[in-house]
Amino acid sequence: MNLKEMDVEQLKAEAETIRKTLIDVVSTNGGHLAPNLGVVELTLALHKVFDSPKDKILFDVGHQSYVHKLLTGREGRFHTLRKLGGIGPFMDPGESDHDPFITGHAGSALSAACGLAVGDEKSKVISIVGDASISNGHSLEALNNIGGKVKNLIVVLNDNEMSIGENVGSLSKFFGKLMVTKTYMNIKDEVTQLINRGKIGSKLTGVLKRAEHSVKHFLAPLSISEDLGFKYIGVIDGHNLEELIETFERAKEIEGPVFVHIKTNKGKGYAYAEENQEKFHGISPFDADTGRAKSSGDSYSKIFGDTFYEMARKDERVMAISAGMVKGTGLSRAFEAFPERTFDVGITEGHAVTFAGGLAASGKKPYVAIYSTFMQRAYGQLIHDISLQNLPVRFIVDRAGIVGADGKTHQGIYDIGFFTGIPNFTVVAPTTCRELEEILEFSTGDISGPMVIRIPRASCFYLEEDKSLTYGKWKKLYEEEPGKGRKNLFIATGSMLQELLAVKPQLEERGIEVDIVSAAFISPMDTEFLLGEASKYNEIFVLEEGYSKSSFGTSVVEFFNENGILKKIHKISLDTGRIPHGERGELMEIYGLRGESLIKRIEGCLDA
Amino acid sequence: MNLKEMDVEQLKAEAETIRKTLIDVVSTNGGHLAPNLGVVELTLALHKVFDSPKDKILFDVGHQSYVHKLLTGREGRFHTLRKLGGIGPFMDPGESDHDPFITGHAGSALSAACGLAVGDEKSKVISIVGDASISNGHSLEALNNIGGKVKNLIVVLNDNEMSIGENVGSLSKFFGKLMVTKTYMNIKDEVTQLINRGKIGSKLTGVLKRAEHSVKHFLAPLSISEDLGFKYIGVIDGHNLEELIETFERAKEIEGPVFVHIKTNKGKGYAYAEENQEKFHGISPFDADTGRAKSSGDSYSKIFGDTFYEMARKDERVMAISAGMVKGTGLSRAFEAFPERTFDVGITEGHAVTFAGGLAASGKKPYVAIYSTFMQRAYGQLIHDISLQNLPVRFIVDRAGIVGADGKTHQGIYDIGFFTGIPNFTVVAPTTCRELEEILEFSTGDISGPMVIRIPRASCFYLEEDKSLTYGKWKKLYEEEPGKGRKNLFIATGSMLQELLAVKPQLEERGIEVDIVSAAFISPMDTEFLLGEASKYNEIFVLEEGYSKSSFGTSVVEFFNENGILKKIHKISLDTGRIPHGERGELMEIYGLRGESLIKRIEGCLDA
Repeated sequence: MNLKEMDVEQLKAEAETIRKTLIDVVSTNGGHLAPNLGVVELTLALHKVFDSPKDKILFDVGHQSYVHKLLTGREGRFHTLRKLGGIGPFMDPGESDHDPFITGHAGSALSAACGLAVGDEKSKVISIVGDASISNGHSLEALNNIGGKVKNLIVVLNDNEMSIGENVGSLSKFFGKLMVTKTYMNIKDEVTQLINRGKIGSKLTGVLKRAEHSVKHFLAPLSISEDLGFKYIGVIDGHNLEELIETFERAKEIEGPVFVHIKTNKGKGYAYAEENQEKFHGISPFDADTGRAKSSGDSYSKIFGDTFYEMARKDERVMAISAGMVKGTGLSRAFEAFPERTFDVGITEGHAVTFAGGLAASGKKPYVAIYSTFMQRAYGQLIHDISLQNLPVRFIVDRAGIVGADGKTHQGIYDIGFFTGIPNFTVVAPTTCRELEEILEFSTGDISGPMVIRIPRASCFYLEEDKSLTYGKWKKLYEEEPGKGRKNLFIATGSMLQELLAVKPQLEERGIEVDIVSAAFISPMDTEFLLGEASKYNEIFVLEEGYSKSSFGTSVVEFFNENGILKKIHKISLDTGRIPHGERGELMEIYGLRGESLIKRIEGCLDA
Repeated sequence: MNLKEMDVEQLKAEAETIRKTLIDVVSTNGGHLAPNLGVVELTLALHKVFDSPKDKILFDVGHQSYVHKLLTGREGRFHTLRKLGGIGPFMDPGESDHDPFITGHAGSALSAACGLAVGDEKSKVISIVGDASISNGHSLEALNNIGGKVKNLIVVLNDNEMSIGENVGSLSKFFGKLMVTKTYMNIKDEVTQLINRGKIGSKLTGVLKRAEHSVKHFLAPLSISEDLGFKYIGVIDGHNLEELIETFERAKEIEGPVFVHIKTNKGKGYAYAEENQEKFHGISPFDADTGRAKSSGDSYSKIFGDTFYEMARKDERVMAISAGMVKGTGLSRAFEAFPERTFDVGITEGHAVTFAGGLAASGKKPYVAIYSTFMQRAYGQLIHDISLQNLPVRFIVDRAGIVGADGKTHQGIYDIGFFTGIPNFTVVAPTTCRELEEILEFSTGDISGPMVIRIPRASCFYLEEDKSLTYGKWKKLYEEEPGKGRKNLFIATGSMLQELLAVKPQLEERGIEVDIVSAAFISPMDTEFLLGEASKYNEIFVLEEGYSKSSFGTSVVEFFNENGILKKIHKISLDTGRIPHGERGELMEIYGLRGESLIKRIEGCLDA
């Protein structure tokens, strides 16, 4: 039955069906559950009132667009959510005409919606943004530019009083508190009427009239959205379908921009998710009956978190900064133990970096833990505030490389390029968890400039006989034998050591000699080794989990060119910037960084 | 005489002396005049009340820190302002202990000040930010994180109701309008008193009491700063020394964060600047008596602006976006002629890029004109919104390369690296103004992905016999003669063609053969030429005005490596990221891109 023809009761039944599907599929595949449970009625109401894809519905971040996907022809394939080749995790025009623009990172949708609305004045554009996202700088810049100008745009603030972690920053509180409540609207009307009817004493009226602005304005100041040049409607119960439909019918008729403020409960309709909204924000596969997630081995993030806790315990100058990802980066324990020295700044990567710069300039030892894909949002600050002043800020670049089910907007593949492409950054990609611990320990010293530690989204890997790291030095894992041929040298950084070691036996079976160097230091490189021993090899491979342009491999190629060593370097890295969603392992294999495909790739280089 | 010992009359006399110095030096050297004339009293009051460098005074952007420089031991060298080796254009800890952090780009200071304040709780940190900067996303992220937390921080909003261009966006109006005026504060007090004294009718009182918040709060809602968790003082006359000193004495004693809102007149005390604040914001040397600037030849920016005007006239889908730099990018004429299709979004580069993405997704032809140094602030958006969707947005990257007197924060040296380091961007650096016109003309077609056109801060250069551009092809400027030796090939992009042609005669006099290829296309490169003719040369030079890592030269080195052409490439580019202020020509010479130093550099490569 067509949504447009359903009455409210039928829509309510549909909402129940959708909730069941969401719980079924996300418990099996993992994904963003609580945010989607919170917007079931909202999304139904939007599609009841507006005509997608003519009208454009754009969810910021897009992690709460599952219901939208279910309502726009993707219900049959929804069980493939976040799987390779399946329905994607966020919004993507490549997946459906009903997704007008890509989303994935918080804060981009309002700017994009502004462009879509100006670019096609005949359609209505509706952009839905959460209370955490709206205080991101990108969102605020957009709000500032939409107000009073873009007539066919409706901004829906989905206020669930709960961002990814706890509510961070005063602006989200500000938005929450200052939005005109219905009670207040009534009061305002009453006051205005009283004034108009002459029921207020002359003294007060006189006072009011001396105000700069009109009495009406003076008495309607709580609405930041109106002052920003929006027509305001709110606060609406985001689970009341009648109210939502009525609201959007009204918003549709008004000359905008319109700001609709709705309140929703994250996790609505699934008790476990309502009780623990943070856990069920984005979750791995879990048991739908018990709400329990399956456990997995220690990750690099956990090792970082545990090690950092000890570092902070020992040294009072050690501080941590997270941009809304305290749990994801393993920092929960340290944040609990050291509230005075740990800062969750919300989804504000730019602020996080410059703030850390200020701390470093004051002699503190700040650690900024941000996922690779989000770190790219602070590139301007990395140049202007960190590189130019050579400030000793420590950057923990988590989820560096292929991240898996979060797909193309979230792959962490550019960080090697942007950190090595600007001066002064030491860039380290530990090849084992022991190296991670060692480099963290080293970083608590009085380092002279910024240091980047990039870690993959992977379970910990250890080597049985691991030697200690030396600054700027690589480690030879092969035996030096007099008279031994020097055919193939493999320089592996970060996660690629593990991948390479896994295929070493098969390579050797096929007659390929494999001399391995473990290269945690991407910058500075081990130039002594490169100029000496490396230059004696026939074939040199450089392996990394990152985009091939401006890569670690590039640095090696350039170094050889500069030093007149004319030798071909085989770069084993990612040759595309569009890596879709799927399991990390599958994607590593498909893109030539794991198993048989890695072997074939190496063979191909040698055959050429 | 020590500032601390001066009385107000003496400070007023000092203000006059300072104004005279500012006009004298800026009329001779160029620089930011109007902003500094506006903050003379403010800066005097700050230094009268606070103890720099123990207390830290941080001006956002820093273009209005001249008075601060004059008061902190730099008066003797102030006549060297913006000159090579002289006093710098913005704040720089390398120049003085009184500059606690680098500034240059708008919006960074509040985040840095937040870090400085948390990092050193014993000092007061005072950060001064203008009404244009405060609506930048970076500033807003910081405000959101400072509120209610950082006790020793004072934010001074320098509200001159006039940003670089006109006031852009509703948020700056919002800040301006909503800040509590003294009149309003008085009214609020009167109303509160009336209520307290029972002079308001019971009906209204009842209504008010039903409000969610206290009556006091209900009646004090205009203060966004208080709602953001600041103690608020304002609005203060920024030219009244008594009031300023009293205010800062008070702010110093309060447990913060404190938000001080002051009003100033940009250009105060110099009639020409007060009348034309935009012209005198940042200005080239001018005649102090008449206020007239000296004229210079046509720039690449002017050619862009003129050509764009014609393009917009012919094609209604052509649109322009500027981030607060309409005049600087040459777009004034188009903005006047086509108000519906031109957008000044203020200092919000991130929003500008994603907004343009939305326009492109709607079938429009957006041109985003932003200086290279500011474009780096939108790197996250370039990846997430443009590259991933391969949207045909046109980027005019102005001031690409060495910018001169604006110094190290403003050098435009990373854009080749970040645009070629992510997929899908066509990157073109016209070598002549004719090529700029041609590529602009080409870009109005239905191009399939994003295109970058990078232009230098230079006067136009034309070649007498210039051939037409072909997409992805380079132009040979040398004669092919059978039997002619192929010794030295010079591949020059953008401004470097002009520099190379200028030294060609001297190189030839010294016996160096010079075969030149003009390479406007940085990406895609002319691979046919590289694989064919280029590979026959003994020595290959790649010349560009950009940072050497992740450069055009890097792309050539990588291409040769990939294709097994083992040949040394000489990269002629910028080897440092810290290029100071000075005249562009001087700096080109010092950093090896012009004249005798370029010749020496080339000779050095050949000798090695």
